[in-house]
Amino acid sequence: MDNKEDILRRGRLSAAKSEEINAFTSSLQADRWIFPSDIMVDKAHTAMLAKQGVIEKKDAASILKAIGEIEAEGVDSVHIEQFEDVHMAIESRLIKRVGEGVGGRMHSGRSRNDEVATCIRISARNELLGLMTDLLELRSAIVRLAEDNVDTVMPGFTHLQHAQPTTLAHHLMAHASAMDRDFERLLDAYKYVNLNPLGSAAFASTGFPLDREYTTRLLGFDRPMDNSMDGVSSRDFILTTLSAIAILETDLSRLADELVLWSTPEFGFVELDDAYASTSSIMPQKKNPDVLELVRGRCGTVIGHMVSAFTIVKGLPYSYNSDLQEVTPQLLRSFEISRSSTRILAGAVSTLKVNRDEMARKSTMGFTTATEIADTIVRATGLPFRTAHGIVGRLARGGGDPSLDDVDEASMAMIGRKLSDMGLTEEMLEEAKDPMKNVERRKILGGPAKSAIRKKLAAENARLKADEKALAALREKLDEASGELSRIVDEIVLEAHHGL
Amino acid sequence: MDNKEDILRRGRLSAAKSEEINAFTSSLQADRWIFPSDIMVDKAHTAMLAKQGVIEKKDAASILKAIGEIEAEGVDSVHIEQFEDVHMAIESRLIKRVGEGVGGRMHSGRSRNDEVATCIRISARNELLGLMTDLLELRSAIVRLAEDNVDTVMPGFTHLQHAQPTTLAHHLMAHASAMDRDFERLLDAYKYVNLNPLGSAAFASTGFPLDREYTTRLLGFDRPMDNSMDGVSSRDFILTTLSAIAILETDLSRLADELVLWSTPEFGFVELDDAYASTSSIMPQKKNPDVLELVRGRCGTVIGHMVSAFTIVKGLPYSYNSDLQEVTPQLLRSFEISRSSTRILAGAVSTLKVNRDEMARKSTMGFTTATEIADTIVRATGLPFRTAHGIVGRLARGGGDPSLDDVDEASMAMIGRKLSDMGLTEEMLEEAKDPMKNVERRKILGGPAKSAIRKKLAAENARLKADEKALAALREKLDEASGELSRIVDEIVLEAHHGL
Amino acid sequence: MDNKEDILRRGRLSAAKSEEINAFTSSLQADRWIFPSDIMVDKAHTAMLAKQGVIEKKDAASILKAIGEIEAEGVDSVHIEQFEDVHMAIESRLIKRVGEGVGGRMHSGRSRNDEVATCIRISARNELLGLMTDLLELRSAIVRLAEDNVDTVMPGFTHLQHAQPTTLAHHLMAHASAMDRDFERLLDAYKYVNLNPLGSAAFASTGFPLDREYTTRLLGFDRPMDNSMDGVSSRDFILTTLSAIAILETDLSRLADELVLWSTPEFGFVELDDAYASTSSIMPQKKNPDVLELVRGRCGTVIGHMVSAFTIVKGLPYSYNSDLQEVTPQLLRSFEISRSSTRILAGAVSTLKVNRDEMARKSTMGFTTATEIADTIVRATGLPFRTAHGIVGRLARGGGDPSLDDVDEASMAMIGRKLSDMGLTEEMLEEAKDPMKNVERRKILGGPAKSAIRKKLAAENARLKADEKALAALREKLDEASGELSRIVDEIVLEAHHGL
Amino acid sequence: MDNKEDILRRGRLSAAKSEEINAFTSSLQADRWIFPSDIMVDKAHTAMLAKQGVIEKKDAASILKAIGEIEAEGVDSVHIEQFEDVHMAIESRLIKRVGEGVGGRMHSGRSRNDEVATCIRISARNELLGLMTDLLELRSAIVRLAEDNVDTVMPGFTHLQHAQPTTLAHHLMAHASAMDRDFERLLDAYKYVNLNPLGSAAFASTGFPLDREYTTRLLGFDRPMDNSMDGVSSRDFILTTLSAIAILETDLSRLADELVLWSTPEFGFVELDDAYASTSSIMPQKKNPDVLELVRGRCGTVIGHMVSAFTIVKGLPYSYNSDLQEVTPQLLRSFEISRSSTRILAGAVSTLKVNRDEMARKSTMGFTTATEIADTIVRATGLPFRTAHGIVGRLARGGGDPSLDDVDEASMAMIGRKLSDMGLTEEMLEEAKDPMKNVERRKILGGPAKSAIRKKLAAENARLKADEKALAALREKLDEASGELSRIVDEIVLEAHHGL
Repeated sequence: MDNKEDILRRGRLSAAKSEEINAFTSSLQADRWIFPSDIMVDKAHTAMLAKQGVIEKKDAASILKAIGEIEAEGVDSVHIEQFEDVHMAIESRLIKRVGEGVGGRMHSGRSRNDEVATCIRISARNELLGLMTDLLELRSAIVRLAEDNVDTVMPGFTHLQHAQPTTLAHHLMAHASAMDRDFERLLDAYKYVNLNPLGSAAFASTGFPLDREYTTRLLGFDRPMDNSMDGVSSRDFILTTLSAIAILETDLSRLADELVLWSTPEFGFVELDDAYASTSSIMPQKKNPDVLELVRGRCGTVIGHMVSAFTIVKGLPYSYNSDLQEVTPQLLRSFEISRSSTRILAGAVSTLKVNRDEMARKSTMGFTTATEIADTIVRATGLPFRTAHGIVGRLARGGGDPSLDDVDEASMAMIGRKLSDMGLTEEMLEEAKDPMKNVERRKILGGPAKSAIRKKLAAENARLKADEKALAALREKLDEASGELSRIVDEIVLEAHHGL
Repeated sequence: MDNKEDILRRGRLSAAKSEEINAFTSSLQADRWIFPSDIMVDKAHTAMLAKQGVIEKKDAASILKAIGEIEAEGVDSVHIEQFEDVHMAIESRLIKRVGEGVGGRMHSGRSRNDEVATCIRISARNELLGLMTDLLELRSAIVRLAEDNVDTVMPGFTHLQHAQPTTLAHHLMAHASAMDRDFERLLDAYKYVNLNPLGSAAFASTGFPLDREYTTRLLGFDRPMDNSMDGVSSRDFILTTLSAIAILETDLSRLADELVLWSTPEFGFVELDDAYASTSSIMPQKKNPDVLELVRGRCGTVIGHMVSAFTIVKGLPYSYNSDLQEVTPQLLRSFEISRSSTRILAGAVSTLKVNRDEMARKSTMGFTTATEIADTIVRATGLPFRTAHGIVGRLARGGGDPSLDDVDEASMAMIGRKLSDMGLTEEMLEEAKDPMKNVERRKILGGPAKSAIRKKLAAENARLKADEKALAALREKLDEASGELSRIVDEIVLEAHHGL
Repeated sequence: MDNKEDILRRGRLSAAKSEEINAFTSSLQADRWIFPSDIMVDKAHTAMLAKQGVIEKKDAASILKAIGEIEAEGVDSVHIEQFEDVHMAIESRLIKRVGEGVGGRMHSGRSRNDEVATCIRISARNELLGLMTDLLELRSAIVRLAEDNVDTVMPGFTHLQHAQPTTLAHHLMAHASAMDRDFERLLDAYKYVNLNPLGSAAFASTGFPLDREYTTRLLGFDRPMDNSMDGVSSRDFILTTLSAIAILETDLSRLADELVLWSTPEFGFVELDDAYASTSSIMPQKKNPDVLELVRGRCGTVIGHMVSAFTIVKGLPYSYNSDLQEVTPQLLRSFEISRSSTRILAGAVSTLKVNRDEMARKSTMGFTTATEIADTIVRATGLPFRTAHGIVGRLARGGGDPSLDDVDEASMAMIGRKLSDMGLTEEMLEEAKDPMKNVERRKILGGPAKSAIRKKLAAENARLKADEKALAALREKLDEASGELSRIVDEIVLEAHHGL
Repeated sequence: MDNKEDILRRGRLSAAKSEEINAFTSSLQADRWIFPSDIMVDKAHTAMLAKQGVIEKKDAASILKAIGEIEAEGVDSVHIEQFEDVHMAIESRLIKRVGEGVGGRMHSGRSRNDEVATCIRISARNELLGLMTDLLELRSAIVRLAEDNVDTVMPGFTHLQHAQPTTLAHHLMAHASAMDRDFERLLDAYKYVNLNPLGSAAFASTGFPLDREYTTRLLGFDRPMDNSMDGVSSRDFILTTLSAIAILETDLSRLADELVLWSTPEFGFVELDDAYASTSSIMPQKKNPDVLELVRGRCGTVIGHMVSAFTIVKGLPYSYNSDLQEVTPQLLRSFEISRSSTRILAGAVSTLKVNRDEMARKSTMGFTTATEIADTIVRATGLPFRTAHGIVGRLARGGGDPSLDDVDEASMAMIGRKLSDMGLTEEMLEEAKDPMKNVERRKILGGPAKSAIRKKLAAENARLKADEKALAALREKLDEASGELSRIVDEIVLEAHHGL
């Protein structure tokens, strides 16, 4: 663009930017992302300027009508790539349509610094709501699979070694519990996002008599930010959101990682639906869990985005610096990744085939019942746990599945007495060695026994309902604000029309 | 240690670890950090085992008495470095004192997996409370300095260029606002930390009839974790805490960075107290803000700790894996850094010398009043803001401090009319060019005008009070729990003593 | 796509992927990036298959002719978005053109695992060469500016405090030296990139008698990788490259950061050309160094990309896993950022306006000559340096510019003697206080004196020449390989044509 | 310490630092790490000052004698914790011993800025040599294990799915190849580390006539840095080293991760020696690969250290800033971790028990011979690979191990012809299905066939020898320099002794 036509540079700067420099300074993806938010902000700001008498009602009406048209024509119509950013693209389009005499008044008492912060916050809160919705779906999918597998016995692992038998439901509900907290963290992040910086102007607010409570209400924000320099300088709402997303991503990655492992021929615990697998260009027998691997890999990408954002923000003096422009893409790409990964994983879990027999078969491999045998010895003989642990440890060297004779031999070597003389019976030993009975004995709060897991499932379903409701309440508040904004804009436009 | 004396390995494993391997697997710093928490957990677990009849009262009494003595002797007495970890060190010490027949019963229904998770959570919540206390002090120091500088005019910056005049109070309250949210984030993190995993045992809970609500109350936790695999596998409470600390650290770093900049001869806005500066080994005139530089640098260290934790957790299948051992040091070092940095910065701010004259002198450098002139043109002449912006932009090329003639010349070139013919007067122009009048006009919510900033200061002081109260309430809850635990332990010990 | 038409899935998998899953698994940006490399690989592999008799010459000719046409039609013509990736898109296009009976033979003895690794390496080495070229330009721009400022005195900083006088040339050559090493690191990285994995097939090589040395030569690689599992599993060449780029980026960021600082009204050392600045939407006087701020900010983005790549690779078992797909975009975006940042910075440096007077004026602020005074005392009086340091430290409290009387007073207080009695004269003191004389005395290797800096400039110019030559040699080798490949392809096609 | 006794602060600063501030600014661990290097630097600098006539020979002799005594007394004797850093601790100790009149001359023409950079470089290069030695040991261990397993057939994996049969030797040599490059990267890093900044002084060099080539030789550096500001400002040698270590760490982590996986009951490929395993506090049968998990986890810690270093350096203007003090610990901790992890892993590999039967048994699970069958079809029938791939893909749905009838049925469905009519025989099919024959056919460069792997083993052994030699050459150069330094120091001391 020629410098003279540039409504920003024409006054101050003599040289135009070259195309290369323009390309370097543009942030097209982020600009497209905030376009709908910017339209909202233009509407609310203009309506407020009119209410406060900063601009005349009829000028406001012309602006609002034109902004509505630009909204309808969509983001492509403003040709962001020809301007410094989406804000200048919209304002230039507006001025082209209604003239500088009218359109030139919209930016009164406002700067791109507060404008862009406001837009990012609006777009971010929408994505947060979307992500929470996606996450509800995944959590439900996990719970449904758990409900179907309350009595699916499987080996539980520590250090990836067989440790004790448990059930698939118990295992899955561990993931569900982690994701409950992920949801809560996103809700926490929302608090920091949904604050209104509009009215901060460049950083020092403005001498125009803006009504910031009014735009706060029209834009559905929870509160205006009460220091204008803070309003434009801070991006902790992005760091908070990115952290919450990155933690969610680690949880997605861990679930995906387990499903990859469980799909190996060695484990053979589950089989992915064909729709979630790919094959090889050379090994025609392959069924590769590439979707899950990408979920896992993209967690790494999101961690990197978080690091970028922290690294950029760390170095900045107050108030606004252009480095902040580079923070926004980290956020929007993290939303893209986390939302699609969550949905994909929900689908993979929903369609997962569980090989119950294989899980059961492997549930006693690796002498997983050793702890129960030690506990049984404690109960039957009154020996201290640490001594029982030592005796069973000896048995473990033999490979598992000990008879009472084996036990006696080990205890003789260890404490010089036979446990069968101290109250341990064949029946007790057999019971301890049965994986399902093993599981059923672990019925305290949080345990894998059917009774315990059913309580957990009930609690989880209640929590899902409550979270759905909390989400709906947030959406409703935004819808109300958006409805009021529409009504007010319509009134101003209509009034001006009739006034003519 | 010889393998036979090792109460863990003697059963299962034939070869002892070499010294090098022992050194490799130890985590001394973290073990020392959780020592007091481990003592608490031992007490609560033992008291509960006695209440539930899993062990006899008199055995519980012996254990509790010995644990109390170990506590009194302190962490050095258990010689952690000779054992796998602090848990085994304490248990071994206990057994040495009361014999395996009694001491060997303490670990019933428990595993190091749930034990260590419980200990980390207790230590972490204490540090969180400490950090919040330190942060309150820093926030207060900033507010006090702001209160003294409500009418200290200074240049406000965007892109590190002079933008508009503001006041030091306004600038400082932007930092205070950011740190308000840091405090809130630490409070949020506390929710995820203060949950009780004890009773999860290795991951599958236990067949012993533990009362997990009881240990939850005695240990001051908010809630038991209701899936035992989740209890030992998840470290999202650490990731959440590290994220909150890292965000706080970026805010500390940004403040420190500004003070470094403001201390340069070029800026000359502030001077650090000598106690917060160092000199050079070769340049005797130097007064270096090394304390602030370290605050800034250590923010980088904390970001790295956060990355480590995320990277480690990302790759782990459920449930417990030893990789998690490597996560704890990231947390404790981040607490160390953030707590000392917060306190140091509070001291530096409290003792800061402000050069008001220099700030005032520079507040009009760089034509910072340009926006106000443009706004004045809008108000006086009715021209649109965008047009006024263009006219003043032309004036800026001249260097600032324009006369009415200059303005007219620029407007003639731009729109073919003189602004003095359209309502702009000499007085208006002079008023717009006065930095303090400039500031005073910006009196809307969040602005720098004295009236606005006084409202903000009042709100901030109220917030500080409320945050102090919230903190006190958390401490009180923990003190009550700790008091109850002491009483119960005393009762068991006393009862056994009288029973004999 | 329907599953039956899918040349990969038709055999093995019953269900097609949904559009959402396809979108999730695609990596369009990376696929477009490697398109030209893939064409090269197809050519070299096919030529080699023909040479080895794995496929017939006439089939090879048909394939090569079609591949040449696809190359000419360009990346858009193969509609990557409709296929799993660019490899399948090209192969499908080929088969559509020449039939499966011929086109289906190209993938013999090859897998996408080795194919994609080969393509990334080819694209990466080209970008590396491009980046090195861009960096040469920046280094030259810095050297040219230094050559113009050999006697531009300025204050040198430590801890951002004035320390000692130096020259702009000396300061700039520090940046040039750092970037010399950046260039060397990129050259180092090239060694790890330019290795040939082709022939590794899926990971276990193949039973077809491939000639891997031949494709190595035709594709311009330095060496074939001599373990086929390593060939497809390792991405350390990307980590190495990303690290080198990230270090370069920190150097760009540090330079940009200084230019931002030097452009402030407080410093006033330099002024950016208007083409490299922007103004404000509200503050018409502003001239913002946003280009430099973006250079600085994007360094953070690149650090994040590096972290992503490390985090992803860390978790992976051998051999190929789809997580690796997510590593490539980190590389290509880092190339984009570092190349444009380097070029932009070269432009900004080349057009920079230096305010020599302001630099000179500030070169004695902050008593920067103190060290020279202390050194002078050592030389004149024979006192030890540490004692002289103490005396001058006392003078520093007074603010600088001490007279001989001041010096004597300080030395009396410190050591009970006047330095004027010990050999220090008025002339010596004056000379020590002159900044340019100060600089001129620092003429040892690496110092700022004109004689020393001219030696450094000469060495640097020689180094730039040598680096240019090294770069040209690398390019030439690739051009030769590419020429040979073209000739061989042409021969095969022509021969078949004549054979008909 | 009282301010008056502080040889640095006594002149310039009125207030002493509080204990808290002292604790905050100290970097004890790093200071201890560089103590021996600092002694070397003091010796070389003093010898050079004497040679150049900056200080008198007899003063140099006194200094060198005292420094030798301090060296002999060791790091604890200088009480670093009572001083700002190790440099001041040594200098203060020296002055206490020989008086300020002599000891106060050692710091002539030097600053802590160049001193510390020199010390870090010396300590870092020593650690690099140590790490390379450790890595040679690990690489040898892997090669020896591979040599023992040239015909140990095992399943090869892609996407953690069985893909094709390979051998353990082939798999192990992939790791060895990656670590070859790790070694090369450490060598590359050495180039950037072993440069001499001494003589840069604070950043502007000095007016004293130092001979920087001389100290370069005495300290064993490759080259003096030829810009003094670069000498004190740059830490790219640390970033380069950290990157190389972090890449090595990802390779260690990947190997450890596989061994963990292979140790599961499901895989059962290997068993760790008991010395490298631990058991459970509650599950007495457990044999946990905690050593390997820690290797894996600590990779995350090192990645974090690298991020910290990048983040800190990114934000810094030239020249020295105290933030750099925070970079050194990242390096030294990364050396600690990588060296111990490398050694531990070498031990684990050397003592690993391989379950050859289990590997062989699983080598055909998952129809791993499918690719070979497809290739056989291509060779026998002349069908294109893509068509053969489709036919075998159909067979894969059936589960593997197809008969010739199965093949014919699949080909009828696919192409309407029987492959047995086109040249495929029962024998060919059987041979394709035999895993060892399968492997033996893959004998091209880099393949798993015995002949190919023996070539690779020979090449690797040659490379190990060459790397050992390169390492020895580096050590020898340092030893020579150190020998010369000792001789010169002795001469000066002796000469002065005789001179008296």
